[in-house]
Amino acid sequence: MIETPYLLFLGDAPDQLAAKVAQGIKDWRPENAVGQFRMEGCKADVGLKDMTLAEAKEAGARTLVIGVANRGGVISQAWKDVLVEALAMGFDLASGLHNLLANEGDLVAASQVSGSTLHDVRVPNVQYPIANGKKRSGKRVLAVGTDCSVGKMYTALALDEALREKGINSTFRATGQTGILITGNGVPLDAVIADFMAGAVEYLTPDNDPDHWDIIEGQGSLFHISYSGVTLALIHGGQPDALIICHEPTRTHMRGLPDYTPPSMESVRDMALALARVANPACKVVGVAVNTQHMSEDEAKAYLAEVEQQMGLPAVDPFRHGASRLADALADL
Amino acid sequence: MIETPYLLFLGDAPDQLAAKVAQGIKDWRPENAVGQFRMEGCKADVGLKDMTLAEAKEAGARTLVIGVANRGGVISQAWKDVLVEALAMGFDLASGLHNLLANEGDLVAASQVSGSTLHDVRVPNVQYPIANGKKRSGKRVLAVGTDCSVGKMYTALALDEALREKGINSTFRATGQTGILITGNGVPLDAVIADFMAGAVEYLTPDNDPDHWDIIEGQGSLFHISYSGVTLALIHGGQPDALIICHEPTRTHMRGLPDYTPPSMESVRDMALALARVANPACKVVGVAVNTQHMSEDEAKAYLAEVEQQMGLPAVDPFRHGASRLADALADL
Repeated sequence: MIETPYLLFLGDAPDQLAAKVAQGIKDWRPENAVGQFRMEGCKADVGLKDMTLAEAKEAGARTLVIGVANRGGVISQAWKDVLVEALAMGFDLASGLHNLLANEGDLVAASQVSGSTLHDVRVPNVQYPIANGKKRSGKRVLAVGTDCSVGKMYTALALDEALREKGINSTFRATGQTGILITGNGVPLDAVIADFMAGAVEYLTPDNDPDHWDIIEGQGSLFHISYSGVTLALIHGGQPDALIICHEPTRTHMRGLPDYTPPSMESVRDMALALARVANPACKVVGVAVNTQHMSEDEAKAYLAEVEQQMGLPAVDPFRHGASRLADALADL
Repeated sequence: MIETPYLLFLGDAPDQLAAKVAQGIKDWRPENAVGQFRMEGCKADVGLKDMTLAEAKEAGARTLVIGVANRGGVISQAWKDVLVEALAMGFDLASGLHNLLANEGDLVAASQVSGSTLHDVRVPNVQYPIANGKKRSGKRVLAVGTDCSVGKMYTALALDEALREKGINSTFRATGQTGILITGNGVPLDAVIADFMAGAVEYLTPDNDPDHWDIIEGQGSLFHISYSGVTLALIHGGQPDALIICHEPTRTHMRGLPDYTPPSMESVRDMALALARVANPACKVVGVAVNTQHMSEDEAKAYLAEVEQQMGLPAVDPFRHGASRLADALADL
């Protein structure tokens, strides 16, 4: 659990895309951030108030979150100067960088002096159990993709928001580092030891109120050979009552695998459903989330109408048009 | 890579079953063991010559392998006395115990003095890559089970032996600690970090001669919700050309999951094949290995004949009747 509210560290981000973690926090949990901290030369701006460390501290910030990707996998001295100062002022630090805060001697030393916590959200800090497969109370929905990086996290966050707007209780359950930083907690599933993956998902989505929905962030794809095992652990550990198929229609090959053609939405529907019913025989596919970012508005609308007919399910782009119809499909279950 | 030959440490095994790792080595790689070491009160005997440490050293043994499960997860002082003495004499130690040799200060100290190696085969000692899915030369067969612990390792070892007897090149590829201790190397797949599971299987089964078979030891089951992700990583990382279905027909529920009914062999065949064809469109199911240990000889024969008809595939109990017909099915591919 990362303490909120945050000050978002944008560092010397070379462009807006480099600050996508900070942008995600601003977009989805604006109440978690008091402002942004930008260094000289920073080319990103997530639209929050620029603050010094002292101003953020005064505004109540508890944690400095590294909301930017670093270059070359090295935490630069320029960053270090800010991070060490923040620790000395009593901020905790949180990071999803590949190179860990815990491996930087000067940050560890500074955190020990001030009693601050270093959160490396790529590394599990819990001893997860082996999955026991017991039926849990409450309801769960999982986003499953035709490929990696097709918008599963975005779909889950949009669905969470749409459910709340309709007055339905729900919780977004993060399974990757960006989602964990956005919400302040979750399971970094791709870093969990194989035997405990499904158990980690059970841990993340415990018993809940009968009318409560856990919106589980998906990872990988059953059809992406590098990460399919992680996807199946989500399907079996999550015991979803509902699945949402996520698709990006302009992909010509699987991400990072030039020899692999993306599967059809029907293949993903059938395979995911058959596997999900091992853990929850009542599981249903309730909708399709299409990432239409590479299409014009007219193309997107035409494509969504076509998918809706083809699949017999509501098909939306949650970024372009909101996830309200997917939330309705869940509410109707 | 663990150096052979071994001296097998049976310790104070309370019964024969406790020494099943040692028994596996004796059954499958007798050439890897010069003898057994038994302490006072040992109730197990794997049928090798009893030796002192000095006699085993004289006979050329390089590694003392802990071939017995310990009680209560503690390495006792009585064991320690023997292990420290072995290290002082220059033996390496190898163990698949849950509690690691590397966490025992006295063993670490003794190994440093003598320059010996401590092998904890439950812990990966390689930085495995992310799977790249590229087609590899050589052929691969994977055992997939209706449940955990139905005889997949045994089937793979018997198949390896049967192929060799027919003059066909093959290598048993261990994916669990017992298999690793039997053959001296492999990947402890259930202890690998999620993102690297499929890559670890690619690493284990690299390019090979066109007529060479890798016999990949299976883990878990697609229908066992605790471990299914590991199974799928084997299917996608292994790119098998052939699958063998492994089944234990007297199970009334999935191992460790009282509420889960074992799937039919047909379900496993169809699901495993559909998933395997993502990585290798030419994959085929070639046979069924049935564990008939809880049936009489007549019952077993009748059941195998029935399965053979039902599945249209050779069905054998490799323990009772050998794996020759499964090897023939592979050779015919």
